[in-house]
Amino acid sequence: MVTKVKKKQANLCPVSAMLELIGGKWKPVILYCLRNDTRRFGEIAARIPAISRKVLTDQLKEMENDQLVIRKQYNETPPRVEYSLSERGKSMGPLLAEMEKWGNEHILQV
Amino acid sequence: MVTKVKKKQANLCPVSAMLELIGGKWKPVILYCLRNDTRRFGEIAARIPAISRKVLTDQLKEMENDQLVIRKQYNETPPRVEYSLSERGKSMGPLLAEMEKWGNEHILQV
Repeated sequence: MVTKVKKKQANLCPVSAMLELIGGKWKPVILYCLRNDTRRFGEIAARIPAISRKVLTDQLKEMENDQLVIRKQYNETPPRVEYSLSERGKSMGPLLAEMEKWGNEHILQV
Repeated sequence: MVTKVKKKQANLCPVSAMLELIGGKWKPVILYCLRNDTRRFGEIAARIPAISRKVLTDQLKEMENDQLVIRKQYNETPPRVEYSLSERGKSMGPLLAEMEKWGNEHILQV
């Protein structure tokens, strides 16, 4: 019961609500990677070399379930899978731009 | 050697660099809680009830080490400890505002 109340209170905070969706180490980086382009899995992996393919797969799956990214599979040989931002994912554009700006301004201090 | 290269490449991305500082579930919420006010530990804990006091202590310590928050201890009885944002922490204001805005607009979908 206490846990439920706590959870509910946390959800009333807009920042907590947002972090339930993209909190963690990788999701904003993946969104940032897809911000302007549709990309194949291998492209995303190549652009974020610090993430393992296993973790990237899991994160993309979660983001697909949360309707942040769209996965499109083409029945070709070999099969082609492409990821792009959904409307919801695109709506994070201003937030990603602020992250990019802050990172660029402070990156030398990290 | 590979790990070092990977790490270096990750650091070149401004979004990754930022997430090294405030990635995770709680730090943006804590920054958001301190955005306008100096607060005592107990006040922060009361405003973020979903976080345990142990985790809150650890997160505040890391943020103090990363120069995002300032911890000030007053030698009173009982001892009083207050936290506020440093200049670096304050520089995340526009980012926190974007998080708040997005959370408010999409909170019903979470």
